[in-house]
Amino acid sequence: MSRALVLEEKGKLSIREIDVPDRLGPADVRIEIDTVGICGSDVHYFTHGRIGPFVVEAPMVLGHEAAGTVVDVGADVKDLKPGDRVCMEPGIPDMTSRASKLGKYNVDPAVTFWATPPVHGCLTSRVVHPAAFTYRLPDNVSFAEGAMVEPFAIGLQAAAQARIRPGDIAYVIGAGPIGIMTALAALAGGCARVFIADLSETKLKIAERYDNVIGIRAGSENPAEVIAEATGAWGVDILFECSGAPAVFRDLFRPVRPGGCVVFVGMPVEPVQIDIVTAQAKELRMETVFRYANVFDRALDIMASGRVDLKPLITGSYSFEDAIAAFERAAAQNPEDVKLQITMG
Amino acid sequence: MSRALVLEEKGKLSIREIDVPDRLGPADVRIEIDTVGICGSDVHYFTHGRIGPFVVEAPMVLGHEAAGTVVDVGADVKDLKPGDRVCMEPGIPDMTSRASKLGKYNVDPAVTFWATPPVHGCLTSRVVHPAAFTYRLPDNVSFAEGAMVEPFAIGLQAAAQARIRPGDIAYVIGAGPIGIMTALAALAGGCARVFIADLSETKLKIAERYDNVIGIRAGSENPAEVIAEATGAWGVDILFECSGAPAVFRDLFRPVRPGGCVVFVGMPVEPVQIDIVTAQAKELRMETVFRYANVFDRALDIMASGRVDLKPLITGSYSFEDAIAAFERAAAQNPEDVKLQITMG
Amino acid sequence: MSRALVLEEKGKLSIREIDVPDRLGPADVRIEIDTVGICGSDVHYFTHGRIGPFVVEAPMVLGHEAAGTVVDVGADVKDLKPGDRVCMEPGIPDMTSRASKLGKYNVDPAVTFWATPPVHGCLTSRVVHPAAFTYRLPDNVSFAEGAMVEPFAIGLQAAAQARIRPGDIAYVIGAGPIGIMTALAALAGGCARVFIADLSETKLKIAERYDNVIGIRAGSENPAEVIAEATGAWGVDILFECSGAPAVFRDLFRPVRPGGCVVFVGMPVEPVQIDIVTAQAKELRMETVFRYANVFDRALDIMASGRVDLKPLITGSYSFEDAIAAFERAAAQNPEDVKLQITMG
Amino acid sequence: MSRALVLEEKGKLSIREIDVPDRLGPADVRIEIDTVGICGSDVHYFTHGRIGPFVVEAPMVLGHEAAGTVVDVGADVKDLKPGDRVCMEPGIPDMTSRASKLGKYNVDPAVTFWATPPVHGCLTSRVVHPAAFTYRLPDNVSFAEGAMVEPFAIGLQAAAQARIRPGDIAYVIGAGPIGIMTALAALAGGCARVFIADLSETKLKIAERYDNVIGIRAGSENPAEVIAEATGAWGVDILFECSGAPAVFRDLFRPVRPGGCVVFVGMPVEPVQIDIVTAQAKELRMETVFRYANVFDRALDIMASGRVDLKPLITGSYSFEDAIAAFERAAAQNPEDVKLQITMG
Repeated sequence: MSRALVLEEKGKLSIREIDVPDRLGPADVRIEIDTVGICGSDVHYFTHGRIGPFVVEAPMVLGHEAAGTVVDVGADVKDLKPGDRVCMEPGIPDMTSRASKLGKYNVDPAVTFWATPPVHGCLTSRVVHPAAFTYRLPDNVSFAEGAMVEPFAIGLQAAAQARIRPGDIAYVIGAGPIGIMTALAALAGGCARVFIADLSETKLKIAERYDNVIGIRAGSENPAEVIAEATGAWGVDILFECSGAPAVFRDLFRPVRPGGCVVFVGMPVEPVQIDIVTAQAKELRMETVFRYANVFDRALDIMASGRVDLKPLITGSYSFEDAIAAFERAAAQNPEDVKLQITMG
Repeated sequence: MSRALVLEEKGKLSIREIDVPDRLGPADVRIEIDTVGICGSDVHYFTHGRIGPFVVEAPMVLGHEAAGTVVDVGADVKDLKPGDRVCMEPGIPDMTSRASKLGKYNVDPAVTFWATPPVHGCLTSRVVHPAAFTYRLPDNVSFAEGAMVEPFAIGLQAAAQARIRPGDIAYVIGAGPIGIMTALAALAGGCARVFIADLSETKLKIAERYDNVIGIRAGSENPAEVIAEATGAWGVDILFECSGAPAVFRDLFRPVRPGGCVVFVGMPVEPVQIDIVTAQAKELRMETVFRYANVFDRALDIMASGRVDLKPLITGSYSFEDAIAAFERAAAQNPEDVKLQITMG
Repeated sequence: MSRALVLEEKGKLSIREIDVPDRLGPADVRIEIDTVGICGSDVHYFTHGRIGPFVVEAPMVLGHEAAGTVVDVGADVKDLKPGDRVCMEPGIPDMTSRASKLGKYNVDPAVTFWATPPVHGCLTSRVVHPAAFTYRLPDNVSFAEGAMVEPFAIGLQAAAQARIRPGDIAYVIGAGPIGIMTALAALAGGCARVFIADLSETKLKIAERYDNVIGIRAGSENPAEVIAEATGAWGVDILFECSGAPAVFRDLFRPVRPGGCVVFVGMPVEPVQIDIVTAQAKELRMETVFRYANVFDRALDIMASGRVDLKPLITGSYSFEDAIAAFERAAAQNPEDVKLQITMG
Repeated sequence: MSRALVLEEKGKLSIREIDVPDRLGPADVRIEIDTVGICGSDVHYFTHGRIGPFVVEAPMVLGHEAAGTVVDVGADVKDLKPGDRVCMEPGIPDMTSRASKLGKYNVDPAVTFWATPPVHGCLTSRVVHPAAFTYRLPDNVSFAEGAMVEPFAIGLQAAAQARIRPGDIAYVIGAGPIGIMTALAALAGGCARVFIADLSETKLKIAERYDNVIGIRAGSENPAEVIAEATGAWGVDILFECSGAPAVFRDLFRPVRPGGCVVFVGMPVEPVQIDIVTAQAKELRMETVFRYANVFDRALDIMASGRVDLKPLITGSYSFEDAIAAFERAAAQNPEDVKLQITMG
């Protein structure tokens, strides 16, 4: 039994003891959780009870962005030891599957993922996790930052899929948490400058605190024109679609240069309309992103180097006893909030 | 003045003398045309007078798939000489443009292209063309085959964009000329097998004459099921969309394996609906194709090696005097016709 | 206890009962061996007792190129069942290692490999192997061909690392078994033609039985000149070095085109001299090959398609009782022998 | 006639009038030179009279790292106008060559390059240059910085060839000007940290002024051990060899991770010994670098963004009248000097 934040059913959270898997296999570690970030998907399960085909049909522990301390290791674990400060990659694939053998364990259909029904998440005192998906935090990376690795990893996966060339100019559509993470990852990954468009001035202001991030006020400016002017009518090398908003897809390819790349990060609920011929006339490449693979260690190296500082994006921190209040604030979708965290204490 | 097949206006062809550019620059060659293939775009200009933004507003010589013999060379031409049998890449880019410098001269916005208004095509006795886009035919490649290089190059560009790995399984949607060319290029480019779907039994029969091309009767079979069965539910490595038919886009990503690739070859007239989330869940890559770059020499090497035999696809050959009859037959869109050619004699 | 061909020590083989690992784990299958090919490394352990740091210090079963029939499956195995005809990938990596997570399980330092001291090989009646590295043979692929997958996989890995573009021209140095496998894999992987150089007329004759393989008599012809003439002084797109002969490295880069690729397949015992500046002046890429990863299924698809016929390379087949005679013949290094096999009966 | 720094013969420089090509073609611009950097190759021609096959046999203007102001433009030039501040890519390829069509115009064998015999360089008052290889300086990039683009472009080409993934750890051997440029380009291109090894404490100190550059004292530290410790025995993702020193090649591959990459930037005069088997056991990729292609605009974007500050590397600036003194100081190879520049004033 473990004390946890439990989504009992749609709209109903409680803090209580619950039975979570606790058997320590030979390749596993047991981790005492310190900090857990609240993700939009956690909030969505809370407010809607489902995401697409994943339906909350039984009480489920929320949370999948976590950092903590190793307290026990399985017999075969060599690279981690009790006392190590760590963060965890929340998906557990079958590493012998065909996709995993190819290095794309994130798209293994058999993957289980924290806080995706019916799998419990990590907003609890202790979890057992495979050592292979548990990463030691560098000394200068705090637990709070460690719990930011998971959302940053999505941006980093997008940056990796884009195959940035040094000095690329990028354009991110959507300045929500994932859009900002993607912008920062694109800069860390070699882009010289990143344009980012949103309707919310508040969100743009947050993004623009970072060097070389240039906000486009989508309500009052024409993004395609801003970019045409900035790039001499050539266009951006890479466009990261992070909004998922159906309206942006129709003319999506216009601001991209001949031979450029579009990365689909945002997940539109319904099919969207795209203009294939415009993409063809520039022979664009399109990449998609699903969670992440092989980027947690990279995220930590980048954060430890000081090249990306995610601390300013942590806009609120709650004790575990106040976790329900934290979720209620998150559900309010205050544009000033990028990331709320809960510390287990 | 040169004798040519002239599209006077929509629906009206004539064979007559016309003034075409004839100045031989220092890097140009003059070619006596032997054989010209009829492309769907030639027919479309004939029947509709336009393709998208390109409108026939003055008499225009048709034709862009050609082979012939060099009869004169400019002062700086070193690699070609009179008497050389050649075929020609019909687009002339600005080789100092930003796209051309990157090796993607096909997406240089300034490219001029034979038989794309207002530029005259090559259905005429003689043309002047840059030596850099004129390719010597190997001895065992006939003029008729040389005039097939251009449509085959589109398939080859699609195969190149796909970045085939040896033994990939491909799936081509649409068994028209471009679909068949793409299937053959995919096999030449390293695919082990190619599935090809169409509603027309006639077209499938033509495609299935080639080894390792497996037809899917889209009217009576469910392509996704055929492929799931053939690949053990894993899916194909590469899907080439060659139909441009709006209806296929909605579920396009289903038969593709995790980490696979979709190449958009067909050009749907209007925006189409795609399901981004399905592509994301498998982290698919999408590539687009616009004409071709750097593949004519490869096409000729492949044809000379005997690995691809395009001769069976030439389903009719007309003398220049019967060129209008050839176009009328092409406009009838007989499913048994893959490629009609005109010999200038 | 299992009946096996045992290398007792350098130079001494025996056929006898030996204790080999036999525990069937939940993800394993048990296979009755049908056919085993003899590899140069098996012969080298027999004649020299070691390969580099790997020394035969205790009796070891030889053999790692095998096909057979599944007779038992572990509790978690879903994709294989008793009666399935299969071939096996002989290396077993730690699939949770850092290299394996990247998809490069072949370079996981912890990999164990059949018949590499102190690990027993598969020249025995039955073996236990992970299902994830056991591949079902298509109906039209015989056991004898199934036992050819392993050596062909090396060629296929080389072809995959080269990232062949459709119509590439390749040049293979060395017409031994691996050179021939590489040439065939390069053709299957999209090359239009393959030049192959060797001093042995016998070996070249074997290679030249295949279409589009062009032998270069390295004793009487100058390979660089042959290639310069064949490619119009441009050079080959890809060079596969499969000889490991120190003498070839000094001028290795000369026949390769600007921007081309060199793949190091052969393993020279000592460091070799290369001319970096010549490679730089053409900005060549160099790739290396270590065994194979993710190609066994591809090899089977290619063989089933009929695109590569490896049967003519099986130049002798022995019953298990005559296995020692087979090894003695293999040790004689008859240039007419490409692959000798042993059937367990 | 134009006033220029002329290398009359080995060891003899003079400042005098000289006849240099001055015809302005329709695609050319005429530039008034402001600043020219002194490159090691300029100095080598001065001190040795030759570099490999390139021998100074007639008086030659030196210099190929330049920035200046457009004073005249040819009839077809659209993107530049008199008054534009620019820097120039010093190689002029045949853009219709086979290599150029592939986007690799830097390896076109017909390229002519400033200050490579018998082609005059740019240490003169005015030059004529193709507009396609002339790049406008952003407002916040000075002439002095503009003249740094050429050496930085070599580092950037190395970074581009490496295909950095975000967060890669790199290791640069050699802290001379090119080593430092490569380290900075690797960071700009997405590396999290760069180790750099040299024997000279002075050079390392200069390199270490930059964040995330970590010097390795090759005289007193064992680089392989430093890296093994820093990367948990895994190794660096990318090794940039920038020394050209024969002694480093023998064990070059040891500090690189499985599946990693080695980029050969330094140019060893003689063939060097490498250990192919060590590279194979990790399936390393090797890339080479020859000057640069398609990176000048990227270099300017990176410099304008403030992500790389090259000004601290300009360790001396001379008026044109003192140009010979500048060359004599450069020839002294003071380890404290990274880049000396001459302003034409």
